[in-house]
Amino acid sequence: MEQTNSSSQYFVGIDVGGTNIKCGIVNGAGETLARVQSPTNAKLGPECGVETITSAVRQALAESKISLEEILQIGVATPGTMDIQAGLLLDPPNLPGWQNFPIRQRIADYFEKPTILQNDANAAAYGEFWQGAAQNARSLVFWTLGTGIGCGIIIGDTIIEGANSHGSECGHIIIEMDNGRPCDTGQYGTLEAYASAKSLIRRCQEALGAGAKSILHEQSRKEELTPLLIAKAAEAGDQLANDLIMESARCLGVGTTSLIHTINPDMVLFGGAMTFGRHESELGRRFLQKIRDEVKLRAFPVPAEKTIIDYALLGGNAGYIGAAGCAKLNYDSLLKEDPTLSS
Amino acid sequence: MEQTNSSSQYFVGIDVGGTNIKCGIVNGAGETLARVQSPTNAKLGPECGVETITSAVRQALAESKISLEEILQIGVATPGTMDIQAGLLLDPPNLPGWQNFPIRQRIADYFEKPTILQNDANAAAYGEFWQGAAQNARSLVFWTLGTGIGCGIIIGDTIIEGANSHGSECGHIIIEMDNGRPCDTGQYGTLEAYASAKSLIRRCQEALGAGAKSILHEQSRKEELTPLLIAKAAEAGDQLANDLIMESARCLGVGTTSLIHTINPDMVLFGGAMTFGRHESELGRRFLQKIRDEVKLRAFPVPAEKTIIDYALLGGNAGYIGAAGCAKLNYDSLLKEDPTLSS
Repeated sequence: MEQTNSSSQYFVGIDVGGTNIKCGIVNGAGETLARVQSPTNAKLGPECGVETITSAVRQALAESKISLEEILQIGVATPGTMDIQAGLLLDPPNLPGWQNFPIRQRIADYFEKPTILQNDANAAAYGEFWQGAAQNARSLVFWTLGTGIGCGIIIGDTIIEGANSHGSECGHIIIEMDNGRPCDTGQYGTLEAYASAKSLIRRCQEALGAGAKSILHEQSRKEELTPLLIAKAAEAGDQLANDLIMESARCLGVGTTSLIHTINPDMVLFGGAMTFGRHESELGRRFLQKIRDEVKLRAFPVPAEKTIIDYALLGGNAGYIGAAGCAKLNYDSLLKEDPTLSS
Repeated sequence: MEQTNSSSQYFVGIDVGGTNIKCGIVNGAGETLARVQSPTNAKLGPECGVETITSAVRQALAESKISLEEILQIGVATPGTMDIQAGLLLDPPNLPGWQNFPIRQRIADYFEKPTILQNDANAAAYGEFWQGAAQNARSLVFWTLGTGIGCGIIIGDTIIEGANSHGSECGHIIIEMDNGRPCDTGQYGTLEAYASAKSLIRRCQEALGAGAKSILHEQSRKEELTPLLIAKAAEAGDQLANDLIMESARCLGVGTTSLIHTINPDMVLFGGAMTFGRHESELGRRFLQKIRDEVKLRAFPVPAEKTIIDYALLGGNAGYIGAAGCAKLNYDSLLKEDPTLSS
């Protein structure tokens, strides 16, 4: 295949989230020609969801002036749990009522196009690897920091999906085996129990309950305690808020060290809502520095020195771009097996 | 390539350990035609080591009645640290004086054959994956339990070497981030600090020092405390010895859970000296069961149910067989690029 042809290859990338569906027409060079976002209305169920998806794709096609005939493949990213190889949702907590829905087949049938399914965190990781902050890396661990902690791992052009679609679920690695904090999954001592948005709020409530000095006592009487409120307090110089956020960073450094000693990637990236303004804010810069410091302290000297640890670049677009990238990956691998496909 | 030709393809596999060098002539179907073992005499330095290796290979060739001309490639496995891509040893603790030795080039020059270098734990993992207990698996995490804890990870035909040859160093994942036990590397709370042979002896010394009841008090006055002595005490019904060994298993279950949530392999295998007689002994069977129980307790239901956790099969031969397998892997991938190589 000639690299120069890739901008005239077209793929559809769809990122189905609990709140919004994003879809884009993306060419083989990774450029987005059109992007449409619609509310998922997950509670209305998967049939309604498919209608939302297909109408968003049609709208994006119209805006991009690309015809459906020109689309080579479609990539769909959804939150877990799922069976990636079977193209099936299993029991995704963020899509209530979508259990056991054969989403890949439904999209493939509707558009009559080869369609692949991918986990949303894996797709976002592939997005950053293909078109984002990790474009020059050969391997990547990508953390998505939000309500929970998602992860995607890319090595070469291999996405670590796992034997049962449970690969790269690194929010659930254990960092404190004894007397660890409880996690929503019913487990103890996982990274998510220490460094997710939910954990930040819980740890804050515990500290306030124990009488820690903080401006958050007064604020939490007026409005609900949120990560944003805690971040603002930290930016305003509140010691407790700052300590709680830096503790998240320290635990992420511990988890990242374990991943470095497992995967030893070129790059580790952090994305998602819980990145505190990233490089644009002083808090975001300190948060990243704390993660880097913890890794330097704990990892073997060579990877501690060489692993690039940074923020992601694509934000909320990583998912659909990555889903389109996964579709291209699949197309390229089919083409390798059967070069006549391109004619 | 036809699979039927593979038994008439020949490779050399060499496993350089701190104590012994093992080398074998292995055909493409994984059968060993001859196997020679010699003492490494590591202290005599790498030049002497190369002589030992080359004479062992010549002896194995003679025994196998395969000529050097018929050998396609050579695989060499060594203990870390190393630069796999550059074919260089860096600073291997088990091979004192072999620092920065270009072992791959030296072997390649001597035999005038394409030669690859691989980490010994990775090679052993590939050996089990190719010809051992994981022959039917598509992905494998292989733990080598000994003085330290080695690990190798195989996904498809990809060996997780890492960007800086530090992949699959999972003995150094962190399982207890705060107040963790110290490890020889200067780190704290790593799996190795809890579940290696060294850790078993240290934990035993601590317990005896604290006055725990055990037949080991008397025995340790007569002979040095070793894992074998502790294992014998456990088999004789000593509660302390048994608890210490089961604690190693519990910690291995914690580490394995983190690996399952990262890689989600088809199979997890345990090999090495610290496997307590494996399936052949009651202690070995309980040790494995304790690991399995801990994983069932901590991992997500689907992978907890589906991941096969067992003992390895090839014992001390996994390394040279895997090294030969890595040579074949390299040959096959070159052949894919240039099919004329086979003629």
